[in-house]
Amino acid sequence: MKDKLTIIKVGGKIVEEEASLKALLADFAGIGGFKLLVHGGGRSATKLAADMGVETKMIDGRRVTDDEMLRIVTMVYGGLVNKNIVAGLQALDVDALGMTGADMNILRSRKRAVKEVDYGWVGDVESVNGEALASLLRAGIVPVIAPLTHDKQGHLLNTNADTMAGETAKGLAPYFDVELVYCFEKPGVLRDENDDASVIPFIDRALYGRLKEDGVVGGGMLPKLENALDAIDLGVGKVIITKASEIGNMTSGTHIVAKI
Amino acid sequence: MKDKLTIIKVGGKIVEEEASLKALLADFAGIGGFKLLVHGGGRSATKLAADMGVETKMIDGRRVTDDEMLRIVTMVYGGLVNKNIVAGLQALDVDALGMTGADMNILRSRKRAVKEVDYGWVGDVESVNGEALASLLRAGIVPVIAPLTHDKQGHLLNTNADTMAGETAKGLAPYFDVELVYCFEKPGVLRDENDDASVIPFIDRALYGRLKEDGVVGGGMLPKLENALDAIDLGVGKVIITKASEIGNMTSGTHIVAKI
Repeated sequence: MKDKLTIIKVGGKIVEEEASLKALLADFAGIGGFKLLVHGGGRSATKLAADMGVETKMIDGRRVTDDEMLRIVTMVYGGLVNKNIVAGLQALDVDALGMTGADMNILRSRKRAVKEVDYGWVGDVESVNGEALASLLRAGIVPVIAPLTHDKQGHLLNTNADTMAGETAKGLAPYFDVELVYCFEKPGVLRDENDDASVIPFIDRALYGRLKEDGVVGGGMLPKLENALDAIDLGVGKVIITKASEIGNMTSGTHIVAKI
Repeated sequence: MKDKLTIIKVGGKIVEEEASLKALLADFAGIGGFKLLVHGGGRSATKLAADMGVETKMIDGRRVTDDEMLRIVTMVYGGLVNKNIVAGLQALDVDALGMTGADMNILRSRKRAVKEVDYGWVGDVESVNGEALASLLRAGIVPVIAPLTHDKQGHLLNTNADTMAGETAKGLAPYFDVELVYCFEKPGVLRDENDDASVIPFIDRALYGRLKEDGVVGGGMLPKLENALDAIDLGVGKVIITKASEIGNMTSGTHIVAKI
């Protein structure tokens, strides 16, 4: 039987405000066994860009990353957000190690081809060095991963943090029994978006099809659930969508599983 | 007999310009055996501060690090400069891992006490986790260290890169036969500062005393040499002061040794 590994993905909002970051790190420190954190940081990047007089361009919710924006996200994701999380976890005796995909070549990507839109320095993940991450984890180290990858040709690339977390989970599935937790502003996937008590506790591919057909879920939740189901198909044990405050409580939220 | 470890310290100027960085990384990649890089980045930090309308205050050549400046150096040292070096080395098949002192708790420091001057978030190194660094090196990883430390209480601290390199060398001396190379704008310590051919090939404590007495060396070179001699006393095999372009050539520059 493989050891359990918990991978937590937290968005920018939680890690960029001191009070919510502090609460998150305390909850994360309390998780037993092997664990790994993937974080965002988009709001701080947008703020720094504004402070520097650089315009932030978003297309379909994705950041256009020109030379100047790549410098900004490298500073914010790889430096400011990542290192503050690491220092915060070290204070809680968690042996954190901040990384981008370039560090130890853990996540290599390819610059996205220009079709209708030129996203600039944005990378789609090509390979995950699960072995390197597994050896760090076995040595008692807790990787903290910023949403940056590299092309192994000297270029850093901006990569969506949800995708990074999913790819990391898949890459570690051969080594661990992986549970991937996406922190969300709601308590899970809701039947009624205005009713926080309407969390759907379990979703498998069959139920997902019906929820989509009936229009119960839509918008940004569709790619999230599709990615989660793909991760399950590729060996990840379970994907959970829940509130950040519930990451210590693995029975809450929506659990995406192979079969209900 | 212990394995040889080469520690290279490069200043900001070299790593912040694309052409000189490229040359440095190629030379660094060519160094055989165990190796580690410590870098600066002060010029980029000063530039970013100016772009953000933040004033850079220096006292006796040291950066005053208030809250805003700490954010800036965290972004520049830990993010921009560090991750570009890592991506550049990975492209040369060097398995680089970018780190600050907070990562894996490799360099813990104490916030400098306020005496005549309040330097702000500046840390003086208290302990080096030589064991953690040695285990990374033995696993084939090449640490790339940014000049930031932490206090193990959740605060990042700005720390002089020369000091970081010296402390790292001392911390690794029990595990390796350490050679510490400080890259310098001149070819070494010069007898005549206007004559690049006047490099003093070897300096030990006795010669240092005479050079200081006779006024042959002075200014910023004095603390550099004192730190080097201290490192030798604490088990570092050799300290070399040389030009960045000579890091592949270990016979050039000034060699600081226990006894000539």
